[in-house]
Amino acid sequence: MEPIGRKRWAIAEGFIPSQSSFSERTLVSACILNAGDRQAHVDIALFFADREPVGPYRVTISPRRTLHLRFNDLEEPAAVPRDTDFSSVFEADVPIIVQHTRLDSRHAEVSLWSTTAYAEA
Amino acid sequence: MEPIGRKRWAIAEGFIPSQSSFSERTLVSACILNAGDRQAHVDIALFFADREPVGPYRVTISPRRTLHLRFNDLEEPAAVPRDTDFSSVFEADVPIIVQHTRLDSRHAEVSLWSTTAYAEA
Amino acid sequence: MEPIGRKRWAIAEGFIPSQSSFSERTLVSACILNAGDRQAHVDIALFFADREPVGPYRVTISPRRTLHLRFNDLEEPAAVPRDTDFSSVFEADVPIIVQHTRLDSRHAEVSLWSTTAYAEA
Amino acid sequence: MEPIGRKRWAIAEGFIPSQSSFSERTLVSACILNAGDRQAHVDIALFFADREPVGPYRVTISPRRTLHLRFNDLEEPAAVPRDTDFSSVFEADVPIIVQHTRLDSRHAEVSLWSTTAYAEA
Repeated sequence: MEPIGRKRWAIAEGFIPSQSSFSERTLVSACILNAGDRQAHVDIALFFADREPVGPYRVTISPRRTLHLRFNDLEEPAAVPRDTDFSSVFEADVPIIVQHTRLDSRHAEVSLWSTTAYAEA
Repeated sequence: MEPIGRKRWAIAEGFIPSQSSFSERTLVSACILNAGDRQAHVDIALFFADREPVGPYRVTISPRRTLHLRFNDLEEPAAVPRDTDFSSVFEADVPIIVQHTRLDSRHAEVSLWSTTAYAEA
Repeated sequence: MEPIGRKRWAIAEGFIPSQSSFSERTLVSACILNAGDRQAHVDIALFFADREPVGPYRVTISPRRTLHLRFNDLEEPAAVPRDTDFSSVFEADVPIIVQHTRLDSRHAEVSLWSTTAYAEA
Repeated sequence: MEPIGRKRWAIAEGFIPSQSSFSERTLVSACILNAGDRQAHVDIALFFADREPVGPYRVTISPRRTLHLRFNDLEEPAAVPRDTDFSSVFEADVPIIVQHTRLDSRHAEVSLWSTTAYAEA
């Protein structure tokens, strides 16, 4: 398949509630598609309101595969702080597509909402 | 009408819950508009986390018509697996517009959310 | 202000439930911004699954004004059929911005979801 | 990091319910990311259905920082009128990314929906 997508993406919205909140069962996710025939190496940086960015978080996606990445699960170089606004920037070495989704983990993780992220022209 | 749309689209998010789950009543849909004066032939490929893509699913849309396609109904070459993350890529021979929508089949299929898909520049 | 927006927009998703359905209180809306200094004349065409398009619906937006247009209220040349899938295309003579929104009329018409429409490049 | 984003953004949808309504607990927000190494000065103009635009509201975002701006909190040059449709245009002196989000303030301000705003090409 001819490559489809862009190499740079950004999501301005981000927030993971703490476990003690009512909303502990929602998960914040970035769905990433690598439709091409080469492995995708994706570096993710997280931005905050009042401290320096953290990253890169490194993700690898095999050719012709999709990854539904949960921000909740990111650990290295640091867990994503809860109850804290953040943004994210994705930089890949091949074209990918990124969609920002909020999931409800109670019921087979059905998405509550979803929006195509910003792609750098 | 002057043609409007793009020939290549992608949706990174996709998930159909199994019938046994609480969310069995939600449907995942791609609304496709062919506003032009020529028939649209659309090939859809589905991408997964851990297996090769499946497709093409072939859809035809008459000139000046819209199709609200349910992923739940796709059968050929294979039904869409339930409880499984997937992404989709649409390739058409004329410009189309694709919007990704989650429906609630209980109440006249009102949409729960919807987002314009990624269009290849 | 320097002009911002595009002259051609499309929304692939559209559905107005009938009054007898549970969802009668939801409204389908297109929010249209004319940020420029010239009046905007917008022609809207509706597309269906199994009949020819209907339109144009003609809307005028004064300079530096916004219009939150409800599809439910469109009357001329024909009311929008209920319980029927449709798509819409917007063609303006000046740049505008279009956002697709579903409203809940019970509570001060708070939006249930919203997504930026497709803009022709 | 190489700059990412655009300098001009628009959100056609906007509505803040009054405190007396059922929906008083929802907040309307614009998440703004300044991923670059220079401070961002953002001028925001609000557009209405039946009066002249109000603005600029001036916001400053430090380099490599995100701001989750609530329209509810805007005060200068005027508070945002409640129960009133509005649109917004963002003009920055460096590239930024803007995402439109509706929050529920009851539960750690979890977002109800979110959509990438319109970016001027």
